[in-house]
Amino acid sequence: MKKLINDPKNVVSEAVAGFAVAHGDIITVSSDPTYIVRADAPVSGKVGLVSGGGSGHEPLHGGFVGYGMLDAAVPGAVFTSPTPDPILAATKAVDGGAGVLHIVKNYTGDVLNFETAADLAAADGVEVRTVIVNDDVAVQDSLYTAGRRGVGGTVLVEKITGAAAERGDSLDRVAEIAQKVNDQVRTMGVALTPCVVPHAGEPSFTLAEDEIEIGIGIHGEPGRERIKLEPVDAIVERLLTPIIDDIPFTSGDRVLLFVNGMGGTPQIELYIAYRHAAAVLAQKGIEVTRSLVGNYITSLEMQGMSISVLRLDDELVELWDAPVHTAALRWGR
Amino acid sequence: MKKLINDPKNVVSEAVAGFAVAHGDIITVSSDPTYIVRADAPVSGKVGLVSGGGSGHEPLHGGFVGYGMLDAAVPGAVFTSPTPDPILAATKAVDGGAGVLHIVKNYTGDVLNFETAADLAAADGVEVRTVIVNDDVAVQDSLYTAGRRGVGGTVLVEKITGAAAERGDSLDRVAEIAQKVNDQVRTMGVALTPCVVPHAGEPSFTLAEDEIEIGIGIHGEPGRERIKLEPVDAIVERLLTPIIDDIPFTSGDRVLLFVNGMGGTPQIELYIAYRHAAAVLAQKGIEVTRSLVGNYITSLEMQGMSISVLRLDDELVELWDAPVHTAALRWGR
Repeated sequence: MKKLINDPKNVVSEAVAGFAVAHGDIITVSSDPTYIVRADAPVSGKVGLVSGGGSGHEPLHGGFVGYGMLDAAVPGAVFTSPTPDPILAATKAVDGGAGVLHIVKNYTGDVLNFETAADLAAADGVEVRTVIVNDDVAVQDSLYTAGRRGVGGTVLVEKITGAAAERGDSLDRVAEIAQKVNDQVRTMGVALTPCVVPHAGEPSFTLAEDEIEIGIGIHGEPGRERIKLEPVDAIVERLLTPIIDDIPFTSGDRVLLFVNGMGGTPQIELYIAYRHAAAVLAQKGIEVTRSLVGNYITSLEMQGMSISVLRLDDELVELWDAPVHTAALRWGR
Repeated sequence: MKKLINDPKNVVSEAVAGFAVAHGDIITVSSDPTYIVRADAPVSGKVGLVSGGGSGHEPLHGGFVGYGMLDAAVPGAVFTSPTPDPILAATKAVDGGAGVLHIVKNYTGDVLNFETAADLAAADGVEVRTVIVNDDVAVQDSLYTAGRRGVGGTVLVEKITGAAAERGDSLDRVAEIAQKVNDQVRTMGVALTPCVVPHAGEPSFTLAEDEIEIGIGIHGEPGRERIKLEPVDAIVERLLTPIIDDIPFTSGDRVLLFVNGMGGTPQIELYIAYRHAAAVLAQKGIEVTRSLVGNYITSLEMQGMSISVLRLDDELVELWDAPVHTAALRWGR
């Protein structure tokens, strides 16, 4: 295992410590229990947004804490759900009196621990709603999940919901918008290589030199099938077709196209994939009006990508375009 | 070779095509010859900034074209200098009457081809100045370079110089600021793995499973030494010490600390490295007042990082903080 780390046990704590120093203008880190929180939290009268999950998917979620997006992120150990304690503490810390929304990727551990934290917060008088993100069309059930997994769509839910909270929407309305984004987004990924969880020291699966895995999960969970490496245009079609057919997206739809790197894939390859994905959508009369290309929800150093397509309406476009100021996503201020 | 590509011959053209579609609000791509240019170029009365070089270092340089940074970027084949033709065409395209600055990384091919293009542009009546970036302290001469190589400091030169041009500074003044940034920044890198140039199909060098290369170049050129893998804190010190000693940086200096990923290293590792780099600087009384962490000048899928330290003064801070709107670096608008 070759990594730029010290003791594998300290990977998350040291990374969070570095993140705190690098972005002290945006966030602070609360320790014992550990969570990353907007420097100006709680924002009085604003709905608070909390997400979190296992580490190893950076910049998700800590990189999305700040103005116009999350109020707090709770990092677990690598690929391991955080316990209810830090989720509860983060929830209370961001409650500005308008309630708190939990944005939870659909993995059994995350769902259970956020639910427990929500119950405890409610008992302490904080109103909490939850949206479960489950945008992965690859498989119905998976290694850590009953139902579909939450993957790339989470980034879009967090950005758009964050803008709604920032403009002053009520908790009910913010939860409704989060659900709408989840309902309108579909994702599928591919892996060229596995990744190595630091404390495990070995890849959780192997792929032959000419093999790729279609429908991979962000923790390396099995996807739909293993196939021989193909030209990326063919791979893009293998990902896009199930996405398009699922909702289904149809001619006349306006969409956001999100090509996400899994961590170890160079940007040049993501843009080659983006090029063909945009062309396939255009051929079907689906208009790409917003784009996101880069490493936003990763699996450590895994080589691969995911493609997400989100159906837009005027409100979602307005919320997408609204100013955001986080470590990983920033515009308009 | 496992990559998300089609024909290796088309890697750059297809990536540039995807980039053009994804970022049509910021840039356009001129073909035959190929260069990436600000959508609103030429900006009348503003000094034009042109950079470029071999592809494979994305987001450098195309990702830095836009308001407050470059006016044009000229991509060569992977790890291969662009020819004078597209550099000349880009230079003319961005000349708004105030002259053009070429920002050139110090590699023999780049320097020669930009020089030829500058001569041809001058013959056509465009005033051109050139700054050669040579911030890499690792080695004096290298595989493709007489003198020090241009690496991470290039990103900082482009951002700060771009802000100076945007506020209306003259060509002489913009060139002077570019030179000042180059004089005040030092960089050194490390590789954990090699990368594979698509048309070569094989790594240009190999590293044993327990080996790393200190002082690596961004094309995989040899560095100072190969050593056994160490904890990242020790690696950080191996990079930082020569950087600090070179200028030298001293107690009381204010600096920008830039921890750059080589392409295949997860963000979580970059922040672990950042944490210790910031601590080492603090111990020496050097104050980190600005930060940049992420993949900004890469070597395809190479695992590794570089550390850059830039000494700041009030003017450089103001220019660093000034609004920028490019595909890869954006704030303030």
